[in-house]
Amino acid sequence: MGEAVGVIGLGVMGAPMARNLLRAGHEVTVHSRSQGPVQRLVEEGAAAAATPGELAGRADVIVAMLPGEQVTAALLDGDEGLWAGARAGSILVDMGTASPGWARSLAELGAERGVAVLDAPVSGGDAGAQQGTLSIMAGGEAADVQRARPVLEALGTVTHVGEHGAGQTVKLCNQLVVGGTIALVSEALVLAAQAGVDPAQVIEVLSGGLAANRVMELRGRNFLEHDFEPGGKASFQHRDLGMALDAGRELGVPLPVTAVVDQLYVALVAAGGGELDHSALITVLERLAGRG
Amino acid sequence: MGEAVGVIGLGVMGAPMARNLLRAGHEVTVHSRSQGPVQRLVEEGAAAAATPGELAGRADVIVAMLPGEQVTAALLDGDEGLWAGARAGSILVDMGTASPGWARSLAELGAERGVAVLDAPVSGGDAGAQQGTLSIMAGGEAADVQRARPVLEALGTVTHVGEHGAGQTVKLCNQLVVGGTIALVSEALVLAAQAGVDPAQVIEVLSGGLAANRVMELRGRNFLEHDFEPGGKASFQHRDLGMALDAGRELGVPLPVTAVVDQLYVALVAAGGGELDHSALITVLERLAGRG
Repeated sequence: MGEAVGVIGLGVMGAPMARNLLRAGHEVTVHSRSQGPVQRLVEEGAAAAATPGELAGRADVIVAMLPGEQVTAALLDGDEGLWAGARAGSILVDMGTASPGWARSLAELGAERGVAVLDAPVSGGDAGAQQGTLSIMAGGEAADVQRARPVLEALGTVTHVGEHGAGQTVKLCNQLVVGGTIALVSEALVLAAQAGVDPAQVIEVLSGGLAANRVMELRGRNFLEHDFEPGGKASFQHRDLGMALDAGRELGVPLPVTAVVDQLYVALVAAGGGELDHSALITVLERLAGRG
Repeated sequence: MGEAVGVIGLGVMGAPMARNLLRAGHEVTVHSRSQGPVQRLVEEGAAAAATPGELAGRADVIVAMLPGEQVTAALLDGDEGLWAGARAGSILVDMGTASPGWARSLAELGAERGVAVLDAPVSGGDAGAQQGTLSIMAGGEAADVQRARPVLEALGTVTHVGEHGAGQTVKLCNQLVVGGTIALVSEALVLAAQAGVDPAQVIEVLSGGLAANRVMELRGRNFLEHDFEPGGKASFQHRDLGMALDAGRELGVPLPVTAVVDQLYVALVAAGGGELDHSALITVLERLAGRG
């Protein structure tokens, strides 16, 4: 028999993650505000918990996959909240993207209640969640990462990157490189198009040298065909760049390139593109060049 | 017997390119301002020309690999200049990085003299020049690219990307992605280090996902160990970003991210780092964060 795992948050990431935990033989309890995903997972063998507290009461490892700090915070307190039900000695693994400061606060709140906390954000998107190939960046105590491994390895590859908050720091580093790369590829493609050069050839030639990157490899077609079905939503990318800049402010690390990339995402979200894939940033550069 | 090829400019790129043309069986004549490289190539079977005009007089295909437009321009005119000696029906292949506007002017000057001109800048650096694995981005008439192919294929892979200037446009796109990626990786590594996270782990984790890029793959060690032996010189990267921004101004394409990256290279060159590898940009970000 596997471990008693609770999964809270059954969105585009959380639902397939819960499914992979079931497949790996764990005893899975789920909770979500929308009942559709709960019903489907119950049909596949999960138990449903009516409240976060009930879920926590049944789990040795609680996996939270929620869209932001505020949503997570709202589920913690009160009679039906997660802390009310959580067992001493259990582990809460917060897998949504959040600030490193939030990760440290959550770890302190957990410690007061005898609950170990890990920050363990992921990269790999919905495809990685479905295939169980997420890259999981874990921050917290080494012993707790070790205890959570049998559960997390059903979801992807786990790297312990440091203390509480370190997982979120690495995730923000990931996001600033991804968002920035999207912006650079966009600038190159718009410059080429305006000069009369076929952008498809630019991607082909650049992919053969030092300019090669995974964004061009996996999203090249999306840039060229303006297919912006997400993938990674622009609004999340924008939120994550904001957190990277906040972390930089806090630590005294100027991030001048990321600051400009963030401004371009402000423009994309302002133009109504928040629900598009983050590669839709190219439309902002096209509009700036009068090609929109 | 191969073709009669003239190679003008025998620096870190030109000399190994001339060597590869000799190995491929071409009849190679060389010219350079420094006599050391000329002597070595003569020992290996090349002929030496005393002037650009003499070189042009012996060549069906002239390969110019010079450090910038001004240097190339200075070799064209006068009694001993390239145009004075060039045969009608020959091809001048300008392989140094230059502006698309320069490429178009050079093509017009050649056309007046019956000399076909191609802009054919390269990526792949000195290693690519030595191994004959350069990525060559050719702009100009398709028929002329076809005629030059037997020569250029001794140097690397040729892609015909469009009309005169298109090769340089694609090269500038390459450079803005490379320089920008170096800046993004630098920001990520400095943010992580200041947060107490091991930068080596950041490179490892990011390389497994959408943030992966060739810069981290090939230069990761250089960032971590501060080994800035070039490679691609920062001063050339800076010059190329300037040309990309000029091309953007001319075409009406704002390049906000590249503009900031360029400013960081201004700082690197101002601090005396022009002769270092372009990955030395991380030292600018470190100094901004008080870690210099």
